[in-house]
Amino acid sequence: MMASQQKVVISTIAQGLYEFTDEAEAFVRSTGIDIGLLTVFVRHTSCSLLIQENADPDVRRDFERFFARLVPVGDPLFSHTIEGDDDMPAHIRTALTAVNLGIPIADGRLCLGTWQGIYLWEHRAAPHSRTVVVHLLGDGSEA
Amino acid sequence: MMASQQKVVISTIAQGLYEFTDEAEAFVRSTGIDIGLLTVFVRHTSCSLLIQENADPDVRRDFERFFARLVPVGDPLFSHTIEGDDDMPAHIRTALTAVNLGIPIADGRLCLGTWQGIYLWEHRAAPHSRTVVVHLLGDGSEA
Amino acid sequence: MMASQQKVVISTIAQGLYEFTDEAEAFVRSTGIDIGLLTVFVRHTSCSLLIQENADPDVRRDFERFFARLVPVGDPLFSHTIEGDDDMPAHIRTALTAVNLGIPIADGRLCLGTWQGIYLWEHRAAPHSRTVVVHLLGDGSEA
Repeated sequence: MMASQQKVVISTIAQGLYEFTDEAEAFVRSTGIDIGLLTVFVRHTSCSLLIQENADPDVRRDFERFFARLVPVGDPLFSHTIEGDDDMPAHIRTALTAVNLGIPIADGRLCLGTWQGIYLWEHRAAPHSRTVVVHLLGDGSEA
Repeated sequence: MMASQQKVVISTIAQGLYEFTDEAEAFVRSTGIDIGLLTVFVRHTSCSLLIQENADPDVRRDFERFFARLVPVGDPLFSHTIEGDDDMPAHIRTALTAVNLGIPIADGRLCLGTWQGIYLWEHRAAPHSRTVVVHLLGDGSEA
Repeated sequence: MMASQQKVVISTIAQGLYEFTDEAEAFVRSTGIDIGLLTVFVRHTSCSLLIQENADPDVRRDFERFFARLVPVGDPLFSHTIEGDDDMPAHIRTALTAVNLGIPIADGRLCLGTWQGIYLWEHRAAPHSRTVVVHLLGDGSEA
């Protein structure tokens, strides 16, 4: 059994979904682990992780529009506005999705379905540099 | 330390919660692992996983009704309608819940609370065959 | 590779966020594991887990107010009212957040970001005693 860990840095320019499935798969390959568990963890409170359809870009636009309506920027309900009026909505959108994912590995590959991609979901309007930790526990054929 | 993995196929007939706690427990027993971590992962983008009350069936009906109101089928907000008017709502309901679960194992059993059951939540109206990967990392008494 | 597990009991007095980052960190230190994966699992269906900002207390108040509006107590939609009119909303708030978290460990510490704290989110009005299972898989320098 081996453990391996790495950081992936993602630059965002505005709210929206940023795919990093390729980076996650490259990390898994680099470890030589065949069967195990990939954990993906984002070290922030105003962006989140999402596994969703990676085919039609309309899906990603609809996600953004639905969440913008569900958790409106400038909602008078919010008292935490000192970091900008999109900050508290960003925290809530993060809570409604996830900051961590667990994905099984088989035959050295992610067990994703055909249409599943891994995304960082930026919930702030301003550009940010986001750090994601990828962590793999498992067994390799030469381990 | 051992790793073991299996697929569970669940046939759905319409939106709703389909329990598979027994299948997950049978898989854990079959591995001989006493202490470890069960990961459950669904390989789709329009159904999800939920750990919730397995006693009163009204709870499951209320879940379905609340989510149907929160993410309405036919909402004019959605532009991704090519796969049916319940497809984009299904993606969003999936994002609001989870595609992966992590459940500790102790004494060869799932650490679920008394009222917790494991469900596949189908978000599409048409029947589907859904694949769930169960993955266990841990130690057994004879390992 | 080692596996270690423990229970943390949290007493709640009403709806709201109860931080237990220190208890989780103390557990990690006690195991001597340097690199690995911490799983946090709550054994209930009417409270949940959340990783969120631990700086401004306004954030926690805004969370509570947003979720109270999104899933209103006394909503006539709900038929499961036998355990109190805040019970079904508590189940839904739990489904919208998480009952399990996975956090990588590096250098014997949780890979949390600067502003991330780990919270139990109580969704019931009455006081409860809540059990959280913390589970660690990993390697230690002397393992």
